[in-house]
Amino acid sequence: MALIEPRTLKGFRDFLPPAMRQRERLMDIARTVYRRFGFSPIDTPALEHLEVLTGKGSDETDRQMYHFKDNGGRPVGMRFDLTVPLARFAAEHLHEIGTPFKRYHIAPVWRGESPQEGRFREFVQCDFDTIGTTGVVSDIETALVIHELMLEIGIREFRLRINNRQILSGLLDSLKLADRSTEVLRALDKLDKIGPEGVAKELQTAQINSPEISKLFEFAAIRGNHQDVLTKLDALLKENEQASHGIERLNTVCSAIQAAGVPSERFEIDVSIARGLDYYTGIIFETSLLELPQIGSVCSGGRYDNLAELFTKQKLPGIGASLGLDRLLAALEKLGKLPALSSNADVFIPLFDPERIDDYFALAAMVRANGFSAEIFPEPKKLGAQLKYADARGFRVALIAGSRELDQGIVQIKDLKTQVATETPWKPDTEEFLAKLRNILAMNSMLS
Amino acid sequence: MALIEPRTLKGFRDFLPPAMRQRERLMDIARTVYRRFGFSPIDTPALEHLEVLTGKGSDETDRQMYHFKDNGGRPVGMRFDLTVPLARFAAEHLHEIGTPFKRYHIAPVWRGESPQEGRFREFVQCDFDTIGTTGVVSDIETALVIHELMLEIGIREFRLRINNRQILSGLLDSLKLADRSTEVLRALDKLDKIGPEGVAKELQTAQINSPEISKLFEFAAIRGNHQDVLTKLDALLKENEQASHGIERLNTVCSAIQAAGVPSERFEIDVSIARGLDYYTGIIFETSLLELPQIGSVCSGGRYDNLAELFTKQKLPGIGASLGLDRLLAALEKLGKLPALSSNADVFIPLFDPERIDDYFALAAMVRANGFSAEIFPEPKKLGAQLKYADARGFRVALIAGSRELDQGIVQIKDLKTQVATETPWKPDTEEFLAKLRNILAMNSMLS
Repeated sequence: MALIEPRTLKGFRDFLPPAMRQRERLMDIARTVYRRFGFSPIDTPALEHLEVLTGKGSDETDRQMYHFKDNGGRPVGMRFDLTVPLARFAAEHLHEIGTPFKRYHIAPVWRGESPQEGRFREFVQCDFDTIGTTGVVSDIETALVIHELMLEIGIREFRLRINNRQILSGLLDSLKLADRSTEVLRALDKLDKIGPEGVAKELQTAQINSPEISKLFEFAAIRGNHQDVLTKLDALLKENEQASHGIERLNTVCSAIQAAGVPSERFEIDVSIARGLDYYTGIIFETSLLELPQIGSVCSGGRYDNLAELFTKQKLPGIGASLGLDRLLAALEKLGKLPALSSNADVFIPLFDPERIDDYFALAAMVRANGFSAEIFPEPKKLGAQLKYADARGFRVALIAGSRELDQGIVQIKDLKTQVATETPWKPDTEEFLAKLRNILAMNSMLS
Repeated sequence: MALIEPRTLKGFRDFLPPAMRQRERLMDIARTVYRRFGFSPIDTPALEHLEVLTGKGSDETDRQMYHFKDNGGRPVGMRFDLTVPLARFAAEHLHEIGTPFKRYHIAPVWRGESPQEGRFREFVQCDFDTIGTTGVVSDIETALVIHELMLEIGIREFRLRINNRQILSGLLDSLKLADRSTEVLRALDKLDKIGPEGVAKELQTAQINSPEISKLFEFAAIRGNHQDVLTKLDALLKENEQASHGIERLNTVCSAIQAAGVPSERFEIDVSIARGLDYYTGIIFETSLLELPQIGSVCSGGRYDNLAELFTKQKLPGIGASLGLDRLLAALEKLGKLPALSSNADVFIPLFDPERIDDYFALAAMVRANGFSAEIFPEPKKLGAQLKYADARGFRVALIAGSRELDQGIVQIKDLKTQVATETPWKPDTEEFLAKLRNILAMNSMLS
């Protein structure tokens, strides 16, 4: 019989244990931090009625979506983000969930777009959102969650960049450019990429005159620590009610996150960020890695006015952000900051004498009962071959015992890093054995 | 604009926080136990080339699979289990992963079958497998993982039912029924469901004579503790080499799992189980809940000879099992054994005075830094409304402070269960505050 070639689809990935351990670690951290701030988990189906997914979608989204007819002839699609499912979910279960509702959702999404560097057709999103409130407390909390996520992941050199869409909107209003906001925001959003000249050119193309362009640049040039920026913004825009409201809220956020312990070098007000053009209506967040700014924001989000307008008449304002799992892992790898997670198991037990399987399992059970992970090699190979496997798998300690040692209730505890082995009794009394084991494993985890 | 009806596809489910917390708990436990025995995580794509998925499939499988052509015209399918992807994965990455290879994989799978009681079109599988070895150590380890999974989940009233396909095969061989093994095994597998008369009828239909049927029933009637069963099997089948080998391996497994601490009432040899008709070739496992046997096995698996024969000429024997997440949750619910996981957060802080947001965030930060989760209500509603929210979300402690208390650095710690509140200083010294908080939360978690 001809073999089938074992291969994955373009743009899709297998995760081998070393990569998957890193992914599991990040998802565990995200869950822990989200829970710490009172967010609850939900899940929704991978497949939805196609109309649910296309409701808000542009043609671009449609083209990128995986969609087909199921066995019952129903048009269905695979979710391309976790926001549309949240909107559908919130509208469907509003009475059960109540508001404010704080949820996190960590799950894969699918997009049929062309695979390219760092872009995949299947990737995991780690979203958290607070819906049903316009309170500034949620703005502050979202900033704190992002800050704590970064710290728990082990990143200290980052900056949370904050803006508020109401400031931009107020400015455009005062310049009578509200009707061209999309073009202006799109152009300003490219400041980092194409520079002021490029942006000016785009603005001219959009029929915007020089005095207004100057004002926009004066605004976009506002830099400095958050206190300076707030003062300058206030001076420039105090006449405009909407902008003032945005400035006031940013002021409250900056003050509270400092009160909660965020040092001032970890955040800035950056008036140039304007993500999600049409979607966000209040505060916006991006997160830059100071050592790797070119990879873009690793955690982004913002406040929106109405999450579920396609599904319900009830207005659901909210705020949320999403941790970029793949981008962050790529960054940590580039920076050499992926922690060593070479194995899940602490203790390796070679199958030295296959006649004594019961003893090895009793030993392993004792080790596990004391909180360590343990694995017995499944084949009676030569000791060298077994230890080679243990080494490749990242085990740090081997417990070696032949029939003589087993008869005496002793075992060789071998530190696989230093290669030092010491004979130690392990039964009936386990105290000395456990002390030695803890010692070696603690030493190893300090060194790694 | 007309609203889109917010609804999920038939056979698909949303998980609201209470249900999702239970699912997360079970998946966390599975990961913890798998790791403790040295299994490593992997992940594979939800979508595969259709030929990869259909390779081994029957028409039945094809009909149940979600498959379509992607935007590039490639025939693709959504995985319907985690075994076929493991086979493809093992064949593709054999040189990187090496053997023995121990992996776990917790991920959703999809089947277009008719939704019915307890059957869904999307469900999570929690598989673990050891591939590349025929060693009995892996048989033992698989039994121990299942045992420990049940205990960690909080189930003590269960029985691991073990059999070995080689015993059945040897028996059929000695009765010259090897060519009708599928019919015989299928009939015997129904003993629990249709009784001996029904099975006898099926066997007669398969052209099997009365003396052989008697022998099969003599075999199937073997009952008792594992030592008795082994003795009886040995008496009946000692002439047959294959059966003897199977009996010998079961003997080794029973002895070792007892050495590892599994009490004899938690397992039995049950010669009537014969799952996976064609697939399994050695030991087979099922797990029955003693208080709810009718729901069927909640964790099942067994040994197979060759995992990836469709993809590689390299023979990959292995053994694995799968925890039935949905079935187990349904059972725990029926038994009233779902633990109370009403909220992710410990501490609720009402937004009592909206002018003092910074103080509330400083308080929350201190609480979180000491290992508790905390949430500040986002709107300055009446205290009663805020506490109602806290109650509905399962919070146990509220920290209430107005401007007077905040000025003095004190807070009311309110036990939301007993409704007892005590004023306590929380800064600059946190000791008394934290002691009280720990006390209330420990008391509450003991009571729940």
